[in-house]
Amino acid sequence: MSVRLSRAARRAQLVDLGVRAVERSSFDDLSIDDLADEAGISRSLLYHYFPSRREFEVAVAEQGLAGLLEATEPDPALPLDARLRESLAAYVDHVAARPAAFVSLVRGASSNPDLRAVVDRAHEVVAIRVLDGVGVAPEAAPPLLRVAVRGAIAFLEEAVVVWLAEVAEVAGPGTDPASRDALVALLERMVLGAVAAAGTDLAR
Amino acid sequence: MSVRLSRAARRAQLVDLGVRAVERSSFDDLSIDDLADEAGISRSLLYHYFPSRREFEVAVAEQGLAGLLEATEPDPALPLDARLRESLAAYVDHVAARPAAFVSLVRGASSNPDLRAVVDRAHEVVAIRVLDGVGVAPEAAPPLLRVAVRGAIAFLEEAVVVWLAEVAEVAGPGTDPASRDALVALLERMVLGAVAAAGTDLAR
Repeated sequence: MSVRLSRAARRAQLVDLGVRAVERSSFDDLSIDDLADEAGISRSLLYHYFPSRREFEVAVAEQGLAGLLEATEPDPALPLDARLRESLAAYVDHVAARPAAFVSLVRGASSNPDLRAVVDRAHEVVAIRVLDGVGVAPEAAPPLLRVAVRGAIAFLEEAVVVWLAEVAEVAGPGTDPASRDALVALLERMVLGAVAAAGTDLAR
Repeated sequence: MSVRLSRAARRAQLVDLGVRAVERSSFDDLSIDDLADEAGISRSLLYHYFPSRREFEVAVAEQGLAGLLEATEPDPALPLDARLRESLAAYVDHVAARPAAFVSLVRGASSNPDLRAVVDRAHEVVAIRVLDGVGVAPEAAPPLLRVAVRGAIAFLEEAVVVWLAEVAEVAGPGTDPASRDALVALLERMVLGAVAAAGTDLAR
């Protein structure tokens, strides 16, 4: 039992190091050798915990996205409109703090197709949050509303990626609060617009 | 000179076969061996025309997306709103006729990261079309409008993918015109909404 626990702890340590390494650079630049050095273990021992680089990347992506989902958790104490806006602002800020990690993950720049499934599961969590926000049980959501909500999530992701590449980078991250606020307002309008376009009124 | 021409013609034939093969199945199932058989050449000769599978996939994706861009070319004879609607309807119909090819390409299900760049270039063509439709020169587009337009294109793509997976497939492609029309109307509202949300009025 203690052996299994220590194995879990070692895995968690390696995933933590992996998340930090990806946040410093990106998924493409993740070096298993450097990580093993950092953890003070051999590369072969790292592969003992994660049988393949692919599996390790999946664990790192899952933990990274869990951090994003936690940071953007809607606050039920807020009224509906503020809840959405705060969550979207947290999304932009969280991503802007680790742009290369986010872009390399959602753009599938890595050649690891398993990462797509990890991103997809995070999208599904966000979709359930949005449906929850408009008072629709996910399993009862009309097909067009589900289509609209998933489309809106793709909008958020792409808009933030393009904003990071073309706007934030020019000014340097965090240097233009007006641009950040305009982006958050755009995202909010698009989520509300998607829900409304699918025939569900958010303000019910 | 005739040797070079025949090389170009042979490449074109192989890319055509590749597009048809991908449309029958998907990028993941593309078999170089089967294609070589179909073209009546050896696998090694195919690699003479395309030094790597990666390069061949890129050529196939470029031609497939060129077909999509051609099918959705806005008709300048139509008024602005009809032009957008017709183009979006053509998009949905073109994709619905080759769902697996489209999904495998835009979802990056293939492990070929070069395909992302091909899809990105097609997005950029569509972005220029939308900006053109609202009378904005691409190089003069305000940053937030560019962000909104690229976001809207991501919306279109994801909405069609989810619709194909969750709605069209249940009914069978092409069996529910009401669902197809509702999707087209949703896409239209979202493109118009994105442009409006970024502060540009499409109906000027």
